[in-house]
Amino acid sequence: MLAIKVDSIVEEIEMGLYRDPYLIGWMTVTAPASDLGAVGAKPLGILIAETLAGDSDGHFISELQRGIKEAGETYGMPILGGDTNFSRSMQMTGCALGIISGGKLMTRRGCKPGDHIYSSGCLGLGSAYALLAYSDMANAKHLNYRPLARLKEGELLRGFASACMDTSDGFLATLDQLMRLNGTGFDVSTPPDQTVHKAALDLACSSGIPSWLMLCGPHGEFELVFTIPPQRDDEFLKAARSICWAPLYLGRVIETCNIMLDTGGGAMRVPSGAVRNLFSEVGGDVKRYISALLEIHATRR
Amino acid sequence: MLAIKVDSIVEEIEMGLYRDPYLIGWMTVTAPASDLGAVGAKPLGILIAETLAGDSDGHFISELQRGIKEAGETYGMPILGGDTNFSRSMQMTGCALGIISGGKLMTRRGCKPGDHIYSSGCLGLGSAYALLAYSDMANAKHLNYRPLARLKEGELLRGFASACMDTSDGFLATLDQLMRLNGTGFDVSTPPDQTVHKAALDLACSSGIPSWLMLCGPHGEFELVFTIPPQRDDEFLKAARSICWAPLYLGRVIETCNIMLDTGGGAMRVPSGAVRNLFSEVGGDVKRYISALLEIHATRR
Repeated sequence: MLAIKVDSIVEEIEMGLYRDPYLIGWMTVTAPASDLGAVGAKPLGILIAETLAGDSDGHFISELQRGIKEAGETYGMPILGGDTNFSRSMQMTGCALGIISGGKLMTRRGCKPGDHIYSSGCLGLGSAYALLAYSDMANAKHLNYRPLARLKEGELLRGFASACMDTSDGFLATLDQLMRLNGTGFDVSTPPDQTVHKAALDLACSSGIPSWLMLCGPHGEFELVFTIPPQRDDEFLKAARSICWAPLYLGRVIETCNIMLDTGGGAMRVPSGAVRNLFSEVGGDVKRYISALLEIHATRR
Repeated sequence: MLAIKVDSIVEEIEMGLYRDPYLIGWMTVTAPASDLGAVGAKPLGILIAETLAGDSDGHFISELQRGIKEAGETYGMPILGGDTNFSRSMQMTGCALGIISGGKLMTRRGCKPGDHIYSSGCLGLGSAYALLAYSDMANAKHLNYRPLARLKEGELLRGFASACMDTSDGFLATLDQLMRLNGTGFDVSTPPDQTVHKAALDLACSSGIPSWLMLCGPHGEFELVFTIPPQRDDEFLKAARSICWAPLYLGRVIETCNIMLDTGGGAMRVPSGAVRNLFSEVGGDVKRYISALLEIHATRR
């Protein structure tokens, strides 16, 4: 079966979140590749539609192409075709193809109460990068934000996971979406000091904001969040070890449609629908966004 | 074999050439579908990446979706997936999939001197639409510019054509590209009153410009231009009739790398490389563009 995913990088460029042309190229491949990972497809290749700003110089374009090329090589995804256009607004679109050969499909639906929740790696680097990039791009570069699409992990997961989705829009938006699609809730009991990426923890600490807020932002890190039925858990973890992968245990699927999160000082029911839309509701104003998140944090009992 | 093509509608929107949301939706599907036609692929479906302007209203968006939906239904191409983003610049990308089952491939390369040149239908409606749209959009609408991707014709052609390409960038750019790729020239001996679309002929007449200039513009009509080896000609024309299709005979492939065109008063060697880039060289200024074309016309012996 053919899997095909299209993904555009638009707002990230327009809002100045991605300025480094290498990163833009890298993400043009990584974003749709990550979608292939989330359905456990084996990558075949990618097509790229580039809309370049008329004033892009040669260095910018060669760095952009280098980002595309190196990501394609990393994932084993040759560039199969493309289209180039010019506009006042740069935009990039990747259309990734993969093959799902035999076995059952892995989708965003199918988890049941009692299933274990995992992520493929630490979370929150997307939020940390965005938080820094909007205030201090020079420092944001030191984070080395360069997500890796979780392709080999996704292929393995297809034999085990009851539901899977990538955190391209941030961890909390991912859980919120899975909750809506599955009619189940999620109790994330692992505390943030174990789930949040080290660099994001450091940034939260130096910025004086609670670390769990790094799980809330709408810019993600392209990890996979997935659920495993408890009876498959041992077998899954053994298979993961065999590819030198240590998934991060987060908690359990629950019956009630709530997102419960260990916020570092006890569990909290997080209003994920509201949090998910907060950044656009404050018009992309980072200060107002942080204030609004801190207000939500203050409601914690 | 899988055929997959990505195509973006960017400049046409930004320059105001496409304003009707239905037409934008229609073209988002038609442009990559036409690329499938040019390789003789049987369509499977399409993915759409939409970047909407933040201020698009409900009517605009529903007309856009109607254009996408009706084109998809026309071509038998279900919408398989997509992505939606927002920007100050609207842009649309379609990624079309098709199947080429057995037989030889049809590409832009392979024509030989002596091959007959055809187009799938009348030419120049793309130029006529653009010429009107840049000066008088209300009148441009009366042209009913709504190209049809030539999918069933492309499937038939795969058994006959030695080279094939669509006129998405206009007829002359298509010939110029085929000339570069094949190392052959083209002698288009059929006069413009038989090759140029009726509406484009009328517009040329009322604007006082020679009709053959309607073959020169960089905005096309999505016909197929293709070549048939003379020994296959009878069989090809019989097959075309069987699907109620009357291809338009244009002339012959020649050895020297020239584009010879009957301009309505004798043959002319057209500087296709220069003509192809003329519109961007005059910065998209329609008046200067027409003047420059008329200067080229004046060099006719």
